[in-house]
Amino acid sequence: MRKLWLKKNEDRRIRAGHLWVFSNEVDTQKSPLTDFAPGEEATLCDTRGAPLGSVCLNPASLICARLHARQADAPLDAALLRQRLSQALDLRRRLFPDPWYRLCHGEGDFLPGLVIDRYGDHCTLQISTAGMESRKELIAQCLDDLIAPASLLFDNDLAMRGLEGLSRETQSRGELPDRLEVPENGCRFFAPCATGQKTGWFYDQRVNRRELARYARDADVLDIFCYAGGFGVTAAAAGAKSVTFLDASPQALALARENAAVNAPALACRDAVETVCGDAFHQLNELYEEGRRFSLISLDPPAFIKRRKDAAQGLAAYRKINALTMRLLTPGGVLASSSCSHHLPAEALRGCVAQAASRRGLHARLLFAGGQGPDHPVHAAMPETAYLKCFIAQVG
Amino acid sequence: MRKLWLKKNEDRRIRAGHLWVFSNEVDTQKSPLTDFAPGEEATLCDTRGAPLGSVCLNPASLICARLHARQADAPLDAALLRQRLSQALDLRRRLFPDPWYRLCHGEGDFLPGLVIDRYGDHCTLQISTAGMESRKELIAQCLDDLIAPASLLFDNDLAMRGLEGLSRETQSRGELPDRLEVPENGCRFFAPCATGQKTGWFYDQRVNRRELARYARDADVLDIFCYAGGFGVTAAAAGAKSVTFLDASPQALALARENAAVNAPALACRDAVETVCGDAFHQLNELYEEGRRFSLISLDPPAFIKRRKDAAQGLAAYRKINALTMRLLTPGGVLASSSCSHHLPAEALRGCVAQAASRRGLHARLLFAGGQGPDHPVHAAMPETAYLKCFIAQVG
Repeated sequence: MRKLWLKKNEDRRIRAGHLWVFSNEVDTQKSPLTDFAPGEEATLCDTRGAPLGSVCLNPASLICARLHARQADAPLDAALLRQRLSQALDLRRRLFPDPWYRLCHGEGDFLPGLVIDRYGDHCTLQISTAGMESRKELIAQCLDDLIAPASLLFDNDLAMRGLEGLSRETQSRGELPDRLEVPENGCRFFAPCATGQKTGWFYDQRVNRRELARYARDADVLDIFCYAGGFGVTAAAAGAKSVTFLDASPQALALARENAAVNAPALACRDAVETVCGDAFHQLNELYEEGRRFSLISLDPPAFIKRRKDAAQGLAAYRKINALTMRLLTPGGVLASSSCSHHLPAEALRGCVAQAASRRGLHARLLFAGGQGPDHPVHAAMPETAYLKCFIAQVG
Repeated sequence: MRKLWLKKNEDRRIRAGHLWVFSNEVDTQKSPLTDFAPGEEATLCDTRGAPLGSVCLNPASLICARLHARQADAPLDAALLRQRLSQALDLRRRLFPDPWYRLCHGEGDFLPGLVIDRYGDHCTLQISTAGMESRKELIAQCLDDLIAPASLLFDNDLAMRGLEGLSRETQSRGELPDRLEVPENGCRFFAPCATGQKTGWFYDQRVNRRELARYARDADVLDIFCYAGGFGVTAAAAGAKSVTFLDASPQALALARENAAVNAPALACRDAVETVCGDAFHQLNELYEEGRRFSLISLDPPAFIKRRKDAAQGLAAYRKINALTMRLLTPGGVLASSSCSHHLPAEALRGCVAQAASRRGLHARLLFAGGQGPDHPVHAAMPETAYLKCFIAQVG
């Protein structure tokens, strides 16, 4: 393996445990990036030649190298992939009785660029770096050895692949299931498999759905940006009185309704399940004007901040939608306000909730401050790997 | 009720939802603090006389007034106390099947200065403001109406009472239990009631103990600063192979051992329960030198930072003890690192864990970032009311 030389002092973040090397940190006199092929391995070293670990490179990317081992000369080969994926699998097996979980969470599992969601016998993979792209076959082989999945879906229509010079595409192997069936928190959910732009299941909210369900008894529930109904259905199964799903996608709403029927049949029977289709900002206003109020609300918007430069505008959108939501809450009601924007700090989301309450002359008290579930580990030295926030607050 | 006037612009924090007024924010020309008796109510108003809510005063304290209602002229009387405590009780009844919880968490329940822990028929109260001190009888009466406790303990030997000019004392009514018996996460714990400097049960870690127990199967557990053994016993009951309790107090260790015997009798039978008495910094070194290693560790130190001015020294202590602890962890082991110092930000504790891992050349991945349980609500507009952090990390 060749050497990738860092400039002076650029080793500090790596020594503190971080896994990324930015192209401006490389001593390109000693190791021109263009000498390396996309996905090639190298030994990362500081300005005096002391090794810091092993990386895979992508000369075309701003993040030009990602560390996959603390040892020098450690190729990202079948043996290392297998070791890392075994560790990842061990952790999930400790956590969950059934094989439905995120099996690999990129940097959080020391496998930068590789995300694998497992749904029983089916796996969905997202590959976002040249290093992992060139090891696709090794990964598939390794999964075969470890869990022998019946089907694989490479769900690689990802915007971030553009940054790595990789094509956006979807490929599959084996026979894909028509749809996924996901057990979670005592419920069973159907979710689409590769049929639309939003597919699969969002395991990251599992703990937060369970926590919100603690407040569900006899509640009138509103599930905003409901997708397949994760929050609303979990609350319905935990004893809610009614549930209203809001989403822009009719397909998502049909699925949410079906999931409610399966998990809370009594509610479905007495017509206590409702769907509202449309833009959330608009529909929340409509619901308010109609005098509708709810005692338990989940607000789980898509990422309003995708890039750092959208932070101010995105924050304003979070403020607005939290305010619109807060108006619909009955006194003493409970709100779960989530954000999956990495660029929105937890403190900022807390501020959105506090402000929305104080504008109504009410106090908000936070009962739970959740993040992504344990099958989405956060790398302790990389705040970039924490993205999900969920505050559960009671307002009165 | 008389008026308490704020200086210009000093209303902003209050309008954002905060409950505290500092003495330098008061317009003492218009409303000299010395005119008010400790505990007296007043209507708080901005510089133009617009009312902001109702407060109780203590002219002797740096925090000279605390808001208890957003309405003007709202006395903190029996009716208001009853309303607030009823709401607090409703929330706990939604959360817990049995009456063991923090019933009132001061500002988080909009009752500044009042903390009540409930243990079935027994309640322990901590009163830290002049406003609540002068309403002690009303509070006792209100509790009697709501839950008719058999005994009350006023556990008022609190340092913060000094800041309010209140005496430090312990009083009781009714017949106190010899000791407390606390059901939690499927276990039963004994805890002392008013027999030493550290008494009662720490409900705030309930959720975090449950989360740590998910990793307990077949683990060798070390519970540092174990007190009555909350973390270690919960892990033992969840299938740990052995448990070692470490504390400076022989009484605490005796209790931890007893709690382990009750909740994990198999462990106790085969002599897999051990206690280590002494200073944690010293004993962690000893254990390391002896070659002892553990696969699951809880580190739950007392507050190393009691006042803001101790922050730097305290942070150094957290760094050190996290490093000493990390050395005892087997590869792939799991650590729950807690801090109850309000003045230590969550980010700083995360840094302690990340640093301790990277110094050993290891990665830490965070599986759970917990706070105080939902019966310790955080006031959303008062970051001061959040104090507990608990990171669960896997290291390897």
